[in-house]
Amino acid sequence: MIQLSEVSPRDGLQPVREFVPTETKIELVRRAHAAGLRRMEVGSFVSPKAIPQMADTAAVLAAARELPGLECTVLVPNRRGFDAALANGAHRLGFFMSVTDGHSQANLNRSVANALEELSQLVRETPAETRIRFNLSTCFHCPFEGVVNESAVMRLVHAVAPLREDMEIALCDTTGNAAPDQVWRVMARAVDHYGERFAFHGHDTYGMGVANCVAAWEAGCRVIDAAAGGIGGCPYAPGATGNVAMEDVVWTFTRMGVATGTDWAKLLEAADFAAAIPGATPGGRMRGVPAARAA
Amino acid sequence: MIQLSEVSPRDGLQPVREFVPTETKIELVRRAHAAGLRRMEVGSFVSPKAIPQMADTAAVLAAARELPGLECTVLVPNRRGFDAALANGAHRLGFFMSVTDGHSQANLNRSVANALEELSQLVRETPAETRIRFNLSTCFHCPFEGVVNESAVMRLVHAVAPLREDMEIALCDTTGNAAPDQVWRVMARAVDHYGERFAFHGHDTYGMGVANCVAAWEAGCRVIDAAAGGIGGCPYAPGATGNVAMEDVVWTFTRMGVATGTDWAKLLEAADFAAAIPGATPGGRMRGVPAARAA
Repeated sequence: MIQLSEVSPRDGLQPVREFVPTETKIELVRRAHAAGLRRMEVGSFVSPKAIPQMADTAAVLAAARELPGLECTVLVPNRRGFDAALANGAHRLGFFMSVTDGHSQANLNRSVANALEELSQLVRETPAETRIRFNLSTCFHCPFEGVVNESAVMRLVHAVAPLREDMEIALCDTTGNAAPDQVWRVMARAVDHYGERFAFHGHDTYGMGVANCVAAWEAGCRVIDAAAGGIGGCPYAPGATGNVAMEDVVWTFTRMGVATGTDWAKLLEAADFAAAIPGATPGGRMRGVPAARAA
Repeated sequence: MIQLSEVSPRDGLQPVREFVPTETKIELVRRAHAAGLRRMEVGSFVSPKAIPQMADTAAVLAAARELPGLECTVLVPNRRGFDAALANGAHRLGFFMSVTDGHSQANLNRSVANALEELSQLVRETPAETRIRFNLSTCFHCPFEGVVNESAVMRLVHAVAPLREDMEIALCDTTGNAAPDQVWRVMARAVDHYGERFAFHGHDTYGMGVANCVAAWEAGCRVIDAAAGGIGGCPYAPGATGNVAMEDVVWTFTRMGVATGTDWAKLLEAADFAAAIPGATPGGRMRGVPAARAA
């Protein structure tokens, strides 16, 4: 059994320039839930000035919380977001920081050390009943520094893991340029040290998305992020497709005999819905395979 | 070091309905060669009535033979093709048969046993200086029989391997629906028995193409087929893309630190050329990644 976390409502829609109506976002969440997905990144409590697309996260989260059995994650970039996420009843907080200083400065305007210090404090303040996903960006490839040193990733994993023992840690391929053997090695080292606490977040920008998800799984990762319809994008690879398509991931793991808990026909419906959202950049293969539509 | 075999001139163009001019085919061969590719499936000596697109294989082969260091493979469906391939100086003969009776009957109008008997005779008659690629179709998934029993594949490998010791054997994912763990297991069993004699031929129909190439490599396979621009198609999945894109495979293995002997800029040129051939169905990711264009 693999846990799949649907990220289209946040990671998939955030790059869309035009505001996606709240009702559309909620319908996307509902369709993904109807397909059997039980973990979802529904939004981000970030400044609406910085990212207007996420301004309605409270409303999306409220609707998502009504769906039975759904665990709702929201991204939390800072203390203000942290407070809002708790006030609005998010089941899981999504913290994030970069492994590389280049990306950290460009994306978060602070050093890796400073980001770690700030997030450590928020982790300590998180109530025990609220789950945490701690996302490490640029674990494999950095748009500013290139291929990332594997031991540098592990040093950060060692710093983060003790913050809270039941906290999930995600190794994130931010650019989509992680190599499958690299994903395998880093994930295996992490799992060897800390067991099944790790998630993998990949992108399909360079066509290696499915291969990287498989590599993560083979190394002992049991939680994988993906987006219905493969919607998303990459600020460092304009014009390229973004998140690994959930339907591609589900097909692959199903073929590998790994249970996903999803309904294939309803997943394709959710994927079609996501891919048709105006302004979204769809990706993935499985929506285009007639033989798989009948499966 | 991995050996890459470029299959766009045959597997990539065969599904194109309109006849692709001979000069276009030769230009495709030349561009792939200019990109550093040194093995190529340039055509098929098959009845021009059955497959009109391959009617000019003799001319394409003659031009390809002029290119320094290029090993030219042609497919040989029967004795007539066998004679023509030898008469025209093919460096390597590509025999093919199915693992499953369902596909064998539909595609070749004979049983697996009969096909093996006929090809065994042709292998025996092949001059020692002419190389052989023995392709086993439907090694993983059959459009008629579904997922293929792994021991059935191995029984056929055991029957084929002794026919000629220096003969390369390809495990082919005909439908693109092989699962990466399955590719790994079957390839590893084959390599465990017979060493580095195996090639992998995959399709990207279901989005698992790159993952399957990586799985084959991890299991010890050192020869992989792919097509510039991902051109091709699949008669069992109409509308879907076909061969794994050579540029996606090269990018992935380069990121894995495996030498491919190719020139990235010239490979993209060949891929663009292939993808633009009227009637061809292009695929792959890397042609659409601006950041990779500058790499």
